[in-house]
Amino acid sequence: MQQLADPFLLNLLLIFVCAKLFGELFERFKLPAVLGEITAGIAMGPMALAVVAPSNSVQSISELGAIFLLFAVGLETQPRELINVGRTSLGVALAGVLVPFAAGFVYVVLHGDSPQEATFVATAMVATSVGITARVLGDLDALQARAAKIILAAAVFDDIIGILLLSVVAGMATADGVEWQSLVLLLAESVAFAVFMIFIAPRIIRRMHGRLHHVTTRNASLVVALLICLALSVAAEKIGMASIVGAFFAGLAFADFAPGLRPQVNALSEFLAPFFFFMMGAQLDLHVLTPKLILPVAVISILAILSKVIGCGLPLLPEGWRTALKVGVGMTPRGEVGLIVALIALNAKMISEEMYAIVILMIAVTTIFAPPVLRVLFRYPRFADERAGAAAVAGEPVQ
Amino acid sequence: MQQLADPFLLNLLLIFVCAKLFGELFERFKLPAVLGEITAGIAMGPMALAVVAPSNSVQSISELGAIFLLFAVGLETQPRELINVGRTSLGVALAGVLVPFAAGFVYVVLHGDSPQEATFVATAMVATSVGITARVLGDLDALQARAAKIILAAAVFDDIIGILLLSVVAGMATADGVEWQSLVLLLAESVAFAVFMIFIAPRIIRRMHGRLHHVTTRNASLVVALLICLALSVAAEKIGMASIVGAFFAGLAFADFAPGLRPQVNALSEFLAPFFFFMMGAQLDLHVLTPKLILPVAVISILAILSKVIGCGLPLLPEGWRTALKVGVGMTPRGEVGLIVALIALNAKMISEEMYAIVILMIAVTTIFAPPVLRVLFRYPRFADERAGAAAVAGEPVQ
Repeated sequence: MQQLADPFLLNLLLIFVCAKLFGELFERFKLPAVLGEITAGIAMGPMALAVVAPSNSVQSISELGAIFLLFAVGLETQPRELINVGRTSLGVALAGVLVPFAAGFVYVVLHGDSPQEATFVATAMVATSVGITARVLGDLDALQARAAKIILAAAVFDDIIGILLLSVVAGMATADGVEWQSLVLLLAESVAFAVFMIFIAPRIIRRMHGRLHHVTTRNASLVVALLICLALSVAAEKIGMASIVGAFFAGLAFADFAPGLRPQVNALSEFLAPFFFFMMGAQLDLHVLTPKLILPVAVISILAILSKVIGCGLPLLPEGWRTALKVGVGMTPRGEVGLIVALIALNAKMISEEMYAIVILMIAVTTIFAPPVLRVLFRYPRFADERAGAAAVAGEPVQ
Repeated sequence: MQQLADPFLLNLLLIFVCAKLFGELFERFKLPAVLGEITAGIAMGPMALAVVAPSNSVQSISELGAIFLLFAVGLETQPRELINVGRTSLGVALAGVLVPFAAGFVYVVLHGDSPQEATFVATAMVATSVGITARVLGDLDALQARAAKIILAAAVFDDIIGILLLSVVAGMATADGVEWQSLVLLLAESVAFAVFMIFIAPRIIRRMHGRLHHVTTRNASLVVALLICLALSVAAEKIGMASIVGAFFAGLAFADFAPGLRPQVNALSEFLAPFFFFMMGAQLDLHVLTPKLILPVAVISILAILSKVIGCGLPLLPEGWRTALKVGVGMTPRGEVGLIVALIALNAKMISEEMYAIVILMIAVTTIFAPPVLRVLFRYPRFADERAGAAAVAGEPVQ
């Protein structure tokens, strides 16, 4: 009955094997495993060797992987810790948006392109994608460092700013223009969601958890946690935020119950997250990198990295350059929002195909740049300037 | 950006909520949770309320759910225990195939249909689908009972017999007829696979596990176990066996390391398996049940249940009627093989559409029949006749 063999399982197996082999290989060369998983995706994906053919099903699995990854990261984070770094993180997020935007805008205009094209490129340089940083910090047992808390809180602000900017440029790309009313609504919804999740939801969960013994379902505590994780991911997406931010909020809300949930949620994330990073690589179309694009891609990538590191780092200089650098590098990876902005602009013929390719490759470079640098910053003692950071460097899990 | 909201996550959420709500409800009425999950699928699925639209992605998730469920069950099973009940189980599996086949064949012929049609219907009545029984026994903490070991071992034999019969009828449905050579090959491959997995693989895994400290990948023990689980599921499918039998073998091979792996694999199964049972229900098309089919469906379902209980139970009577009854009922659920046989026969116009509907509904009835009866048999003291069974009845997890 070989005709019944399902390519889905085989694909899953091949992807998991490749991702983990590359991860192991990279670790041996003192590079982060996650970079190996992305490289596996680039090498084995449909754009290169085409060993595996990612289907919708694999795409869905990878989406779940990102969700459980951020749920696990949320479990390691007490809402109080985020509130403590709230004001600092808002500054980090704002400067981390303004500086890259200004840098991108000025560069494209100086390059001789229209201010309109410059606006789109600048917007695509703005929004941080926190998934990869979260994974690297988790792998390094560094989620308890102050720099990690600042990154996570800033990522929440960054996501809100990102979707607002995305709405603005999406409006610019249509005949109707920007709908300021819906923009205000979007801002109100996302801020209300974040405030509710950080200040109120953890208390509700705490009360609810005390009543779980009335439930007869087996392993009710895990079931309820998974349910709320899925529900908040969907809710975040409905508002317009990233689903992983919803999953992160769900983790926060259950942080008090992390000791019981951690091994179980980690297992889900351990199995599913590699598909997310593999697909990240598999979706990178290296064919767009023609020789004449190498220089502009290099320039704009360096600009994207420097502007984010400087933007996010500046407000943190009073805390010491080490923390500033860690947070700055942790915020460099760009992701989905940038890709969507670029795609909207391309479809509306507001940027050239060439510029589109440059933006895609810039996003890839920032994603590949962050993990190895973060590994050095969080692992080597000379960059340790905080209590929690020092413990993490010593190789102990910081609890 | 609501247009970006992905129906996949929403579907997943709705299915998980419905499955768990129905499961909780059923538990309160002293019915197995798994039956609630199947009922949720029937009620919410595309055939009835159509609240959720199961996509390929959800189908893939449900497939993974069955795989991790059987992997978890395998982890609870020492290969030695299966070998101990090997001879008994072979008798159970053989009689459990012969009696239903004979009953089905005689009934259809007496009913006035052709011997050919009778052969197909009889074959569809043969193969046990062990997923649901495994889940019920797991939920009841009864996997350590002797009856459970006999069911699991007999299910392996049953799967091998089932694929052989499937090949025979698939050959009958083509112009070429049955290819006896490939049938012998199929038998040799599946027996070799089973023998290798039960007698040799656990030793290889034990040696390999001792060397895992050379691996730098995080959580290497889980990663390797997941990898081998996927690999064996694919291998089983390649041979022609059920992928879940491969996953069960993988669990067996890692049974020595169950204490470390159990909570993690259980988390995967806890999250993913409800999708399997929900989809089981969602795929049942109740529209085929017309009033005039009620009687034949009832008759053939009773025949299917009685013949399996008698066939599997008879060889076990020396061990007492309680064990015989437990094993017999545990083996009643029919599944995929029966569905495939019916579909092949329908496509080859070798059974009528009416008979096809009867077979589908018979499979549904056997699936729905087993869980509540198993719950009574394994939970109430009057059916306890074994040491392990007695402990399970007392509500203690039997380790």
